[in-house]
Amino acid sequence: MTHPRHTTVGIIGGGPAGLLLARLLHRSGIDCVVLESRDRAYVERRQRAGILEQGTVEVLRACGAGERMDREGLVHDGIELRWNRRAHRLDLPALTGGRRVMVYAQTEVVKDLIALQLADGAPLLFGAQALAVTGADTGRPGIRYRHRGREQTLTCDYVVGCDGFHGVARQALPESARRTYTRSYPYSWLGVLAEVPPSHDELVYAHSARGFALFSMRTPTVSRLYLQVPNGTDPADWPDDRIWDELEARGAVDTPWKPARGRLTAKAVLPMRSSVTEPMRYGRVLLAGDAAHIVPPTGAKGLNLAVADVTVLARALDQLHRTGSTELLDAYSDTCLRRVWRAEHFSYFMTTALHTAPDQSPFDTRLQLAQLDRIAGSPHAAAELAENYAGLPLP
Amino acid sequence: MTHPRHTTVGIIGGGPAGLLLARLLHRSGIDCVVLESRDRAYVERRQRAGILEQGTVEVLRACGAGERMDREGLVHDGIELRWNRRAHRLDLPALTGGRRVMVYAQTEVVKDLIALQLADGAPLLFGAQALAVTGADTGRPGIRYRHRGREQTLTCDYVVGCDGFHGVARQALPESARRTYTRSYPYSWLGVLAEVPPSHDELVYAHSARGFALFSMRTPTVSRLYLQVPNGTDPADWPDDRIWDELEARGAVDTPWKPARGRLTAKAVLPMRSSVTEPMRYGRVLLAGDAAHIVPPTGAKGLNLAVADVTVLARALDQLHRTGSTELLDAYSDTCLRRVWRAEHFSYFMTTALHTAPDQSPFDTRLQLAQLDRIAGSPHAAAELAENYAGLPLP
Repeated sequence: MTHPRHTTVGIIGGGPAGLLLARLLHRSGIDCVVLESRDRAYVERRQRAGILEQGTVEVLRACGAGERMDREGLVHDGIELRWNRRAHRLDLPALTGGRRVMVYAQTEVVKDLIALQLADGAPLLFGAQALAVTGADTGRPGIRYRHRGREQTLTCDYVVGCDGFHGVARQALPESARRTYTRSYPYSWLGVLAEVPPSHDELVYAHSARGFALFSMRTPTVSRLYLQVPNGTDPADWPDDRIWDELEARGAVDTPWKPARGRLTAKAVLPMRSSVTEPMRYGRVLLAGDAAHIVPPTGAKGLNLAVADVTVLARALDQLHRTGSTELLDAYSDTCLRRVWRAEHFSYFMTTALHTAPDQSPFDTRLQLAQLDRIAGSPHAAAELAENYAGLPLP
Repeated sequence: MTHPRHTTVGIIGGGPAGLLLARLLHRSGIDCVVLESRDRAYVERRQRAGILEQGTVEVLRACGAGERMDREGLVHDGIELRWNRRAHRLDLPALTGGRRVMVYAQTEVVKDLIALQLADGAPLLFGAQALAVTGADTGRPGIRYRHRGREQTLTCDYVVGCDGFHGVARQALPESARRTYTRSYPYSWLGVLAEVPPSHDELVYAHSARGFALFSMRTPTVSRLYLQVPNGTDPADWPDDRIWDELEARGAVDTPWKPARGRLTAKAVLPMRSSVTEPMRYGRVLLAGDAAHIVPPTGAKGLNLAVADVTVLARALDQLHRTGSTELLDAYSDTCLRRVWRAEHFSYFMTTALHTAPDQSPFDTRLQLAQLDRIAGSPHAAAELAENYAGLPLP
C-alpha cells in the first residue's frame, strides 16, 4: 500500500484492540489506518490470552469476525476451582443468568481480524514503528513512524493508542495530565503449550501449598498450562518432567486424576502486574487496551477489557461521525475506567485468592481456604465470582 | 457461696461466653461452676461489642435472657457504607431473606446473664482467678484458682475455657497439640462513648482517605464512635474537639451531614488482631470464644462467635448428659472452626476493605473504592456482605 498522509482515525498497534477498532470504524464508514511495528507472521504467532467473555464474542460476531470462532472455538459453561484436595465447579450460565465464555486464542482472533481488514483493502501497515504522537492537544494530531527505514508522519483527526503497556501513545499525555496506578506481584507464571488433549474439559484453577496452577486449553488437542513460579525464574530450569510433576502435584484432588503428558512448546515466564493510567483521553489522543491498563492474567480480563474499550470508543466515534456530537467521546475515559477498575479488582482478587505469596503467613493461607470454602458453599459468593469471570455486560 | 470441690462443667471466665454456657447447661440440668477473676462491678462495666446477630438474639431469648434486650435493644434493618463522599445502605432483611441485627451492648447482656445466674442460685464466683488447668488429658481435669488469697482446686468432668485471649485455659493444650494462626493490623481503633443521640439511625461504616470511622450507638441517647488511629496512639493526644472534627471529616458525604457533638466518655485505644487456636478441644478441656479466637472488631463478630461456640458446646454436653454419646462433643472443634474461619475471613475483609494502611499505595486505595462501588452496584456482592454481617445460621 502507499503511505497515506492523513486519516480520520490513526490507530497505533495491530493487536486485537487496534484491529477490532478498525473493523468497527470500517462498519461505520470512518476512515482509519492501523500501524503495526511487527510483521504479520510475528503478530499472528504471539501467544496471549484465550478466554473470550460473551460480550467479546458478540462484538466479534457483529463485525464479521465470528465465523471461524464459532466453528473452532469451545463454548465453556463452567470453570473448576481446586483447593485442599477438593474440587468445586462453578456453573457459569446457572450463576449468571445464561452467560458463557468461549475458549478461542487471542492469536486466532488476530488472524481473523487481519484477514478481514486486508480483504477490505483497509489500511494496515506492518513493520510501521510508531515513534511519537504529536500535537495531542491540537486539532491536528499526528503519528510519527518509521517504515522501511524512512520516517513518515500520518496526520489524523484522532489518534488511538492500542500499542500496549510499552507503547508510545501513553507518552503523548503530559506527565502533569496523567496518573498511573500500579501494583506488582511477588510471583510470575510459567506458561506452556502442550501437544496433548486437556486433562479436564473445563478450565481448572488450582490453589495449592506448592503454588497456583491453571489447566487451560487452546483446542481439543492442545493444552495451555501455567504454574506459579518465583519472579526471575529461568524457563531453562524447568525441564518438561519437572513441569508435569508439578502440575500433577498442584492439581491433585482426593479422586484419581492425572494430567496426560505430551510435548511442551512455547515455554515462557510471564510477569504479573496491575496498572491503570488515567485519564484514557487527552485532547485528540485516546488510549485503549493494554496501553491504558494491565491486569494479571488470572481473571482472563486483559483481552476482554481491550474489546470493551474499543467498542465504547467506536460507538463514540460513530456518534461524532453521524451527528457531530462529542458527548460519548467526552465520556469515553470515565465510561471505560469504571469497567477497568472493576476488572482490576476482580483480577487482583483472583490472583491473591489463588496464589501463595513468598511471605504468606499460615493465617493468610487459612483465609484463602476459608474464602474458597465460602465460594463453594454460598450462592452469592459463587455468583459474584461467576458474574465477573463471565464478564459484565458492555456499558 | 461455699467453695464447691467438684462440678460437672467448670467454666473459667464470667464474660458472655461463660455466663451463657452456664445458663444453657442449667436449662439441661447439668451442674456447672463459673469462676470469674474480676469483681461483679468491673465485669458489668467493661465496654465491649454491641451488635447481636439474629442467631445470638434467639439463643439469649431461649435461655431467658431476652426480656430486657427485647425492651431496650434497637432492632436494625440496615447499615450504611460511605466512601468517596457517597453513601449506600445495605438493607439486611431484603438481602438475607429476613435477617436483622440487634444493637444491645455486650455489657448489658452480661448484666442480664449475671442476674439470671444469681437468681437461680447457680454457682458464679467473682474474684476467683484461675491459675492453671490441670489434668487436661486425664478423666478428672481441674482448675486451680485463687480466691480471697487462698488457692483452691475445682475438679470437673469437663473444663471450659471462656477466659479470653490472655486466659490460662489455652495453655492447658500442650504446645505440640495446638497451633495458633495470627495476624496483626497496622492500625488501631480509638473508641469513645458520647452522651449524644446517634447522628444516623443505623450504623455507618466510613471509608476515608483520612482513615476509617464507625458511627455506632448504644442507646437512643448514647453514641459509640470509633476512629482508625496509628498503633501506639495515646488517647490523651485526642482531645474531644479533635475527635469530633475527625469524625465529621471522615463521615462527610455530598449531602449535608454533621454528627451532633456531646460529652465524650470511656476514651480507649483498641488493638486490631486476628487469631485462631486449633483445635478447640484437648482431652476434657474445651475452649470457647476469645480463648480460642480473636477477630478485629470491624465485622462485629467477636461476641457472636462466642455465642455460637457455647451454643454448639451446650448442645454437645446435653447430648452426653442425656444419652452418654460423645458424638457432638467429638465434633465440637471442627463444627466451631468452620464458622470461626468464615468469620475470620469476613472480619479481615471488612477491616482491609475499609481501613487505610500506612503503606497503602494509591492503587490499593482505588481497589478499595472499586470494591465498595461493586457492593453498591451488585446484588450478589451486597448480599454476600449482608449475609455475613447479619450472621450465618447456627450450625
